[in-house]
Amino acid sequence: MTKKYVYSFREGNASMRSLLGGKGANLAEMVNIGLPVPMGFTVTTEACLKYYQEGEKISEEILSQIFEALENLEKEMGKKLGDTEDPLLVSVRSGAVISMPGMMDTILNLGLNDESVKGLAAKTGNDRFAYDSYRRFIQMFGNVVMEVEHNRFEAIIESVKEKKNITLDTEMDAEGWQEVIKHFKEKVKEETGREFPQDPKEQLLMAVEAVFKSWNNQRAKVYRRINKIPDDLGTAVNVQTMVFGNKGNDSGTGVAFTRNPSTGENKIYGEFLLNAQGEDVVAGIRTPQSIDQLKEVMPDVYEQFINVSNLLEKHYKDMQDIEFTIENGKLYLLQTRNGKRTAQSAVKIAVDLVKEGLIDKKEAVLRVPADQLESLLHRRIDPAAKAEAVAKGLPASPGAASGMVVFDPDEAEAMGKEGQKVILVRTETTPDDIHGIVLAQGVLTSRGGMTSHAAVVARGMGKPCVSGCEAVRIDYEKEEFQVGNTVVKKGDIISIDGSTGQVFIGEVPMIDPELSNEFNEILKWADEVRVLKVRANADTPHDAKLAREFGAEGIGLCRTEHMFMAQDRLPIVQQMIMSETKEEREEALAKLLPIQQGDFEGIFEAMSGLPVTVRLLDPPLHEFLPNAEELIVEIERLKSQGASEELAAKQEMLKKVRALSEMNPMLGLRGCRLGLLYPEIYEMQVKAILKAACTLAKRGIKAIPEIEIPLVGHELELKTLREIVEKTAEKVFEEEGIRVEYFIGTMIELPRACLTADDIAKSADFFSFGTNDLTQTTFGFSRDDAEGKILPHYLEQKILTDSPFIVLDRKGVGSLMKMAVEKGRQEKADLVVGICGEHGGEPNSVEFCHMINLDFVSCSPYRVPIARLAAAQAQIKHPRN
Amino acid sequence: MTKKYVYSFREGNASMRSLLGGKGANLAEMVNIGLPVPMGFTVTTEACLKYYQEGEKISEEILSQIFEALENLEKEMGKKLGDTEDPLLVSVRSGAVISMPGMMDTILNLGLNDESVKGLAAKTGNDRFAYDSYRRFIQMFGNVVMEVEHNRFEAIIESVKEKKNITLDTEMDAEGWQEVIKHFKEKVKEETGREFPQDPKEQLLMAVEAVFKSWNNQRAKVYRRINKIPDDLGTAVNVQTMVFGNKGNDSGTGVAFTRNPSTGENKIYGEFLLNAQGEDVVAGIRTPQSIDQLKEVMPDVYEQFINVSNLLEKHYKDMQDIEFTIENGKLYLLQTRNGKRTAQSAVKIAVDLVKEGLIDKKEAVLRVPADQLESLLHRRIDPAAKAEAVAKGLPASPGAASGMVVFDPDEAEAMGKEGQKVILVRTETTPDDIHGIVLAQGVLTSRGGMTSHAAVVARGMGKPCVSGCEAVRIDYEKEEFQVGNTVVKKGDIISIDGSTGQVFIGEVPMIDPELSNEFNEILKWADEVRVLKVRANADTPHDAKLAREFGAEGIGLCRTEHMFMAQDRLPIVQQMIMSETKEEREEALAKLLPIQQGDFEGIFEAMSGLPVTVRLLDPPLHEFLPNAEELIVEIERLKSQGASEELAAKQEMLKKVRALSEMNPMLGLRGCRLGLLYPEIYEMQVKAILKAACTLAKRGIKAIPEIEIPLVGHELELKTLREIVEKTAEKVFEEEGIRVEYFIGTMIELPRACLTADDIAKSADFFSFGTNDLTQTTFGFSRDDAEGKILPHYLEQKILTDSPFIVLDRKGVGSLMKMAVEKGRQEKADLVVGICGEHGGEPNSVEFCHMINLDFVSCSPYRVPIARLAAAQAQIKHPRN
Repeated sequence: MTKKYVYSFREGNASMRSLLGGKGANLAEMVNIGLPVPMGFTVTTEACLKYYQEGEKISEEILSQIFEALENLEKEMGKKLGDTEDPLLVSVRSGAVISMPGMMDTILNLGLNDESVKGLAAKTGNDRFAYDSYRRFIQMFGNVVMEVEHNRFEAIIESVKEKKNITLDTEMDAEGWQEVIKHFKEKVKEETGREFPQDPKEQLLMAVEAVFKSWNNQRAKVYRRINKIPDDLGTAVNVQTMVFGNKGNDSGTGVAFTRNPSTGENKIYGEFLLNAQGEDVVAGIRTPQSIDQLKEVMPDVYEQFINVSNLLEKHYKDMQDIEFTIENGKLYLLQTRNGKRTAQSAVKIAVDLVKEGLIDKKEAVLRVPADQLESLLHRRIDPAAKAEAVAKGLPASPGAASGMVVFDPDEAEAMGKEGQKVILVRTETTPDDIHGIVLAQGVLTSRGGMTSHAAVVARGMGKPCVSGCEAVRIDYEKEEFQVGNTVVKKGDIISIDGSTGQVFIGEVPMIDPELSNEFNEILKWADEVRVLKVRANADTPHDAKLAREFGAEGIGLCRTEHMFMAQDRLPIVQQMIMSETKEEREEALAKLLPIQQGDFEGIFEAMSGLPVTVRLLDPPLHEFLPNAEELIVEIERLKSQGASEELAAKQEMLKKVRALSEMNPMLGLRGCRLGLLYPEIYEMQVKAILKAACTLAKRGIKAIPEIEIPLVGHELELKTLREIVEKTAEKVFEEEGIRVEYFIGTMIELPRACLTADDIAKSADFFSFGTNDLTQTTFGFSRDDAEGKILPHYLEQKILTDSPFIVLDRKGVGSLMKMAVEKGRQEKADLVVGICGEHGGEPNSVEFCHMINLDFVSCSPYRVPIARLAAAQAQIKHPRN
Repeated sequence: MTKKYVYSFREGNASMRSLLGGKGANLAEMVNIGLPVPMGFTVTTEACLKYYQEGEKISEEILSQIFEALENLEKEMGKKLGDTEDPLLVSVRSGAVISMPGMMDTILNLGLNDESVKGLAAKTGNDRFAYDSYRRFIQMFGNVVMEVEHNRFEAIIESVKEKKNITLDTEMDAEGWQEVIKHFKEKVKEETGREFPQDPKEQLLMAVEAVFKSWNNQRAKVYRRINKIPDDLGTAVNVQTMVFGNKGNDSGTGVAFTRNPSTGENKIYGEFLLNAQGEDVVAGIRTPQSIDQLKEVMPDVYEQFINVSNLLEKHYKDMQDIEFTIENGKLYLLQTRNGKRTAQSAVKIAVDLVKEGLIDKKEAVLRVPADQLESLLHRRIDPAAKAEAVAKGLPASPGAASGMVVFDPDEAEAMGKEGQKVILVRTETTPDDIHGIVLAQGVLTSRGGMTSHAAVVARGMGKPCVSGCEAVRIDYEKEEFQVGNTVVKKGDIISIDGSTGQVFIGEVPMIDPELSNEFNEILKWADEVRVLKVRANADTPHDAKLAREFGAEGIGLCRTEHMFMAQDRLPIVQQMIMSETKEEREEALAKLLPIQQGDFEGIFEAMSGLPVTVRLLDPPLHEFLPNAEELIVEIERLKSQGASEELAAKQEMLKKVRALSEMNPMLGLRGCRLGLLYPEIYEMQVKAILKAACTLAKRGIKAIPEIEIPLVGHELELKTLREIVEKTAEKVFEEEGIRVEYFIGTMIELPRACLTADDIAKSADFFSFGTNDLTQTTFGFSRDDAEGKILPHYLEQKILTDSPFIVLDRKGVGSLMKMAVEKGRQEKADLVVGICGEHGGEPNSVEFCHMINLDFVSCSPYRVPIARLAAAQAQIKHPRN
């Protein structure tokens, strides 16, 4: 049996999208429900794929089906393509499975030639219209199909207008267009070496092939890459009877959304042009009128359109984006599709549709793209402002801010205290800069990745940060930076957008986040559905409170190193590190104990009654010391001034920095390895955690501490440290005269931990995936190094579709996670398993976490709503108990 | 039914080793074959484990079995323990499953007390012997069981001797010993608060318990850690009738090997003492006589002993280590076990036993511990020399060498050319030092791990290297280093042993490697058995030749970066790296092409007819540039002298170094990532490889190049690069007018590569495991950082039993490898899979590679014989097709 490659609009429906493309399926659907759609047929995506498989050739089989469909169409319309008296004219348009607006090619008025144009003129009694249509056809076909440059045609029109001494196209009469047509055909011959095709069937086949080819044109490829659309879908081709909006003032064309795509307001929103064809609206030569005005111009048509809109919304149960044409007072629909919308609009429409009884709550939850929510949660650059970025770095911490450029953290602090808005600009930040970051509106660095110090600290504080913006060349001495040819001096205003990585000169209008009632409603519905718990990563009482407000059900990751890095503590931490003996180290740790205890009390209180996972010290110790290169420069300077005490001290410090320096610190002395080599550090931390919990318990506040050991790769690491934690705990409970419940678990962030998760589970009450490190080790990618230098090339070359640091790599990292969950629960059925890497707030990754049966995801406070929604969507798509 | 915890020697046999311990099983075996063994019984290892399980208590069940066994023994011997007329005396000895010589405790003469000693005196007619035996018993029992310090007893003996005005123990008469005994008992009372036990059954039980406890004494624990013996085996206890070698000159005691344990010569080898007990031999107070002399002293006993020796050898089919005692002219055997031996002896004995028809070739192959072979392949410190090391670093490249200390590579080169022997001593080495390493006898560095530059280069050259020897503090300015309190100046002689990491002051005697005929015979037999192929890692024609001599069946890893690092090429490589444009880079690469081609021609010629896996460039580019810190110091110095051209050049270089510097270079821009970002580098290398192959083909020499892409983690990396390689190959074949067969494959060295091996196999003709990197990423351990700082603690704390960089981690890394092999072959059944990490020459790892069905292992040339033997042993133990 022959395969069917061509479908009449009568034969398709909306569910046949992957075969007929979005446009073709929706046209067929509209035909089926009886709406006024100009008749036509669709050549399928499979025909397109076959075209490529067969070396860019349309097979005989497909050819004959196209001609058969054409014949049927001619019969139905009572007209023949190329007829010299009343010719059938058609449009030929691409229609991909996933909408790629404007990316592929369209040909209108096909079927005209030197003879049929006369028929059209006679039949319509409108010479000018006929010849204008013909010249438009030659122009479009010549450009799109025969690849003659667009401006060659424009030049001809210009020269004829000049000759005729007119300026506007609308002033051109039929004779003028006839002259243009003559020159057009000569130009086509000259450029392509062949006559402009007069045979309408040849025109049709050439046009179909051109659409097939347009699937692989540069624009389309780039669009697919950006929008992550697979390359192997192919496009369908829609051949549709022409209707004309340019037949006079009882004709017109327009585009409308059934609701407001920006705000979601339930009111038709769109625009139209009288006496015009579709491309005139797009070209923007004349300013279209609001759709409301149609009511006055053509009340009947308007009413009919409103009815059609309502019908389509009810039919598709979603806001529609509709293209229409009015020909001599008669409405035709050329396209309908679910309309693109802003996050705000998506939320409102989804909630409204539930209230209108069109969809249920689950469907509403599915209707809001979770990753779009983020834009509602941060201050952002007003998209209406159309500001132009001068540079782009990494989107290290979301949100937008404006302020005066300051290079020195002390200055940033001073100005901030005076109430001035500043942006701290540094090559990179260190723990010494934190006081400046606290009082800045945002941070811009020229070096460092998404996990650089600046990025992590800014995210923790909820401040915008653009990192690794290499185009920004800072000169600290001159107190200025250069970007391109622009020099920005201290005190100049800049704006940054940490959600996109963009940097702007001057102040740019911003929009504050607004959490609407609908937003809360959707999240409430999401919470009713989801089974995956959502916690937050929070290191301070402030963040913990914020997280709770955003709906976090506990803290999944409380990092203790940021507590170590605060300005008042760093000297004590450094004293500890510089210690030569265990005793000296314990002395410094004793000073840190009450400070850490205070931190934990604040956090536990904010999270009262909810679990708080506290990770024991993780980063390598040298992160708390100054940088070696800076020390060397200083030492060389001091040397040239002769020996001094300062020199000796710096040399001593450098010695320690050197001793601690590592080839690959990410794979060095950190995590539980620190705890095994210096158990006194972990002992102090455990004391601080449990003393805090005991203190609160005495005040009647319930803390649920979960003590987390990082970077475990071998069961005996955890077993050994668990014993130390338990011993320390018993000591604390004895001292405090009270016991509290607590849990001991581990980060799962090394491949070996996943591979031996059954053994590790023996000593663990819970697992929490550290997917940042797990991704680094599984791929062998250092995030700091890869994000700037390697991943952009990989995305460009399509080796990867996403950065695995943003979207969880299901095939590699994910398979290790799945293994770890299964092995862990096989050993211990009630093992609690979560994720606290940054993937915990990314919808695709949240879905995967749901699918492999995690108990919770944990993410930054601002992403909690996203995770709640994504978790609900995951449950709807992949139900689990 | 009650479990049997006590076995008479008549009830056991050699196969019951894990229950009865080695000694107990062998005593029983000897009894069974009718040899003269003093009768006794064994308390099982299970009894020991039960003792610990029950809180260090001997259960009633075991007690009654011991007493029953004792009763039977008394019946058989016709004597009773503690009898006042003719008492039965017994020894109580530990007997572990795996021999731990001297690590646990022994008690002799048990059963003596104040009464039975009189019976012994009367029965033997030897008062002195009886009281000497009693005091020995009190001394041993008091020390071992009752924990009285040994020197308390010695002090009493000294004071009695002083009183009696004698100096030697042998001068002491019966009265003297009686006085000693009196004081001994008082001392025991004083120290322990209890009387010395007079009840022989109580003595027995206390002794048994003491042996159980000795399983967990400090010595035994340390021994087990060092020798990797599990802690949960427990020890058996052997209770055996005493016989006395100290009953006069027709008595004696000795130890003998049935063959020479050093050389393997088939001649009995041992020593004995007349009129002595076993501990006298051990104590070394008197010098024993050679076993040959026994022939003269007691010809009958000697003949009997020779017969017994032959019988035991035939019975056990291996060289035996025999303990014996002669009591009044009667020979008793106290122990036999397979004798420990040197590698040389092991080889000779195994081959001889085959020739003697005692064992077959397979058994002979199993008899030689593969890892011991290494000592035969390198020059080594003469163990007889008993030299004392002053420091210990990492055993970075095996072999030993002596020479004058030189700190400067140029000087090392100059002196080396004059024929002087030098050891190059550096904090660490860089590519700039290679010319010095070439002419040095060996290298000693104070920093860097087993994969540091010095280590890798030295291994490649087969030169000894001790790396990361932190005790060595170098002062380049003074041209000296300090180790402890010793200062070693330039020109002083030192010796290093790269097999152990030891450093010696002065010249130490060495032994040259000798490959005996037996050695070659064993390897020939191994080759007949094994199915796993053995290749070598070799980067130069010289190494390739050497590898072939050692029996390599191809090259499994030819690293191209060492070619880049040679002194004449480095400037060109640096020029390439400093290039701003692709064109500049290609210009530099064009200069490298003929040089690389020459390298490959040499290697392919040496390996004619065998496959050569060439890995394309792997290390990060900054490894070819100078170190940033050195540049900074230089720049600061130049700055203080004012601006100059040199300053500008150095600053330019520093900029590049900075641009290329990475946080974690191990996880950065290296391997196939280089090839994807700078395809021109790989193109040049592929050209060089295939042009070399074509050139040889024209000369009738068959090269089989296997082009290997390193660090692949995603199928599309390999797919993309495969296309580049294939395109380049076609160009070369066209230019050369000839085609050669070649293969394209990949290193499997990232967890993700293992997890997605099925996808990767689609573009691979072969896989080769890079287990160094795979271990680093699976564990999250940077080898450079972990080997010095972390792993020693982990081994100390018993978190790991071996460094995973030396012995393949089967559970973690191994499970990834297994997965990769299975997934790879599932996609492509004939996929060739090998390993080229350093594990490829380590016997335990080779066995695992065999078990997971690899096709080949590849290791350094000197380890090829080890791998051949290990592969054969693996096949015998785990046969596969």
